[in-house]
Amino acid sequence: MKIGYLVIGSEVLDGKISDTNTKLLAEFLKISHLEIHQSMVARDEKTTILEALKVLFDKCDLVVTSGGLGPTKDDITKETLAEFFGAKISYSEKAHQVAETNYKRFDRPFPGKDHGYSYLPENFIPLNNATGFAPGFFTEQNGKFLFSAPGVPREFKSMLEEHLLKLISSKLDQSVVLGTVIVRTKKVPEEKIFGEVDPTLWDKLEKFGEVSSLPILMGVDIGVKIKAKSHSELAEKVSGVKAVIEASPIKSAVWSYGPESLEERIVTVANHKKIRFGFAESATGGLCSNRITNVSGSSQCFMGSIVCYDEKVKEHILGVSAKTLEECTAVSIKCAEEMAHGLKEKLSVDIAISITGFAGPGGGNDKFPVGSVCIGKAKNGHNSAESFHFKGDREILKQRFSQAALHVLLEELENFA
Amino acid sequence: MKIGYLVIGSEVLDGKISDTNTKLLAEFLKISHLEIHQSMVARDEKTTILEALKVLFDKCDLVVTSGGLGPTKDDITKETLAEFFGAKISYSEKAHQVAETNYKRFDRPFPGKDHGYSYLPENFIPLNNATGFAPGFFTEQNGKFLFSAPGVPREFKSMLEEHLLKLISSKLDQSVVLGTVIVRTKKVPEEKIFGEVDPTLWDKLEKFGEVSSLPILMGVDIGVKIKAKSHSELAEKVSGVKAVIEASPIKSAVWSYGPESLEERIVTVANHKKIRFGFAESATGGLCSNRITNVSGSSQCFMGSIVCYDEKVKEHILGVSAKTLEECTAVSIKCAEEMAHGLKEKLSVDIAISITGFAGPGGGNDKFPVGSVCIGKAKNGHNSAESFHFKGDREILKQRFSQAALHVLLEELENFA
Repeated sequence: MKIGYLVIGSEVLDGKISDTNTKLLAEFLKISHLEIHQSMVARDEKTTILEALKVLFDKCDLVVTSGGLGPTKDDITKETLAEFFGAKISYSEKAHQVAETNYKRFDRPFPGKDHGYSYLPENFIPLNNATGFAPGFFTEQNGKFLFSAPGVPREFKSMLEEHLLKLISSKLDQSVVLGTVIVRTKKVPEEKIFGEVDPTLWDKLEKFGEVSSLPILMGVDIGVKIKAKSHSELAEKVSGVKAVIEASPIKSAVWSYGPESLEERIVTVANHKKIRFGFAESATGGLCSNRITNVSGSSQCFMGSIVCYDEKVKEHILGVSAKTLEECTAVSIKCAEEMAHGLKEKLSVDIAISITGFAGPGGGNDKFPVGSVCIGKAKNGHNSAESFHFKGDREILKQRFSQAALHVLLEELENFA
Repeated sequence: MKIGYLVIGSEVLDGKISDTNTKLLAEFLKISHLEIHQSMVARDEKTTILEALKVLFDKCDLVVTSGGLGPTKDDITKETLAEFFGAKISYSEKAHQVAETNYKRFDRPFPGKDHGYSYLPENFIPLNNATGFAPGFFTEQNGKFLFSAPGVPREFKSMLEEHLLKLISSKLDQSVVLGTVIVRTKKVPEEKIFGEVDPTLWDKLEKFGEVSSLPILMGVDIGVKIKAKSHSELAEKVSGVKAVIEASPIKSAVWSYGPESLEERIVTVANHKKIRFGFAESATGGLCSNRITNVSGSSQCFMGSIVCYDEKVKEHILGVSAKTLEECTAVSIKCAEEMAHGLKEKLSVDIAISITGFAGPGGGNDKFPVGSVCIGKAKNGHNSAESFHFKGDREILKQRFSQAALHVLLEELENFA
């Protein structure tokens, strides 16, 4: 089944927000071994939406749209879809009921017959929206499916989960089993992996499926998309991919085979080993802590952090010596060591990680220009630190600093006795 | 000039990453009063890319592509574009030089004539890439422009800034002046603004330009896109929009007219008033601090934070009383007050904001179910706290909690004597 996705919303093309629904839809479809064939973003203009619908329906069996279902004047999705299908819009008892239910859930009175939500193109089915007001809808015409949901990510996601698979189940191919192995490597550039470290790796992996290579923060994700006729054949091919990696010199750079993120892996390992940790964050300004606390279950292993943006906080809360701050400055190996040590004592954690550096645009010196970061660690009475250098703007540098710090933490967790 | 944007990369359609380049391109174009007419995402497959190019070039004068320019086998943008234009690829002295320069910048030897970067379709111009290895390129054929850059956001952005406007300047209309006013409101739902608070607002604003309404975290951004014949006419229309808002009952919900984010506004106000602040973060786990430290200049006003995820950190570092934790629990008005008070003392800040709540999926009780948050503030010896309730999953709740906390902080900063 070919699936097209149409994001309706001038706000995306105007740069007010980034589209995150494509990722939600792709992740949702992946579970059922489906994928987005093509996606488009259209402005809230009838002509553009009609053109995009034509392009997508020409190629695809199912078109998912999001956005433009709200109550304001720029929300024109419903009338445009009606025009596309040559359908009349009229009052629908069922649409009225669905909208009323959505409103009741939020203890708000529904205006009733007068409200646009009570009107629907003929042959459209209104869909309950468990997390918002605007109903979605679905139609099957000439063997093609249309599924429309609001653009608010929470609502889009809940409507996919509640409705989509049920509505298209009749057309799903149950005979193919798909899977993906993601080989997550760190610290070796993409070009070096396939050019120097293991020049035959790509070809060896391609025997198991479609290979892709995606540079991510401080590493490369090598993906192998596998098709199989049965679950046992899939498992066999997955093992084959892993065997290729285990026999390759790239093995030492691999930190995960799963789709799990670095922060998820950290929480898994720390909870399994019952290790408690925390951060002394200067240059990352709370980002390491934020990433870890995005993971459900992190409260078992993450005790807390001290975001020591100002030197006084480094000195008075973490106990970094005035001498170190004076002689070595706050961005130094020594300061990073003392920060980690101070945090370990203050929070009574097993492992403390510290981050101090220059994320720019200001700051920096000859030894440590903007992009430099010192990352310290303290455990069992051993304190040490190392420095790294990255390129990028402020937010990218914060991301890279946090990635480096989390990789240091993961190594410590894995080696922790 | 109609502009189309083609994102080339299966990783976006597979949900591995969200596309953020559309936002970068839109923000870049806005400065020159240009906008993206249409955007598409295509997989790294020749047929799909060719179809997408056809759709975009049919409508647009300029097509920007990103992605698929790297050295791996799934990078097929260049050969696909050559096929689209019916151009032969051959060795290019100029392309060789550009690639060699990119490599030299990173102190890496360029393999030379053997490398794919030295080859270019006829009539294509290679473009320097100041932040990466892969060169971009440009061509003008039959009155239409093509601009191709790598997909890595940093490289894409720097190539836009270095090249794009120069290359298309001959076709830019200099006779129209465009501008946008963004009226940023908080705490009133979209429907209520235009339905109850001021039912004539939309029509009144529409006299000045195209109106849009975008629900964002805890608020709504009302945008008015203005076209004018001169800068003075533009200024007049901008004043007109502001006058409509100032005379409307929605005025009390407006917190900014600018495009600036909540965290940027906070840093601006705090630095202007020389106020120092910090956070005691439990449920937001570092997110408030991270958002503030994304803003350049935050080091003047943001002292630091204590991320007190574990109760022991609340008790031992912030001095929340054991009695409060025992009798009221950690998610309570009383605990939020004590956290804010403790932080203010510890960090010697003018304003301390605390956040404690249940982001889920676990936790919560009858009084404060998952989605509840208590936000405290401490200043000049006054401590207080209030509770809020939101819906969403863990990451969305953290976002909403942080938005509520930052709005509390902004109000405190604006009222601070």
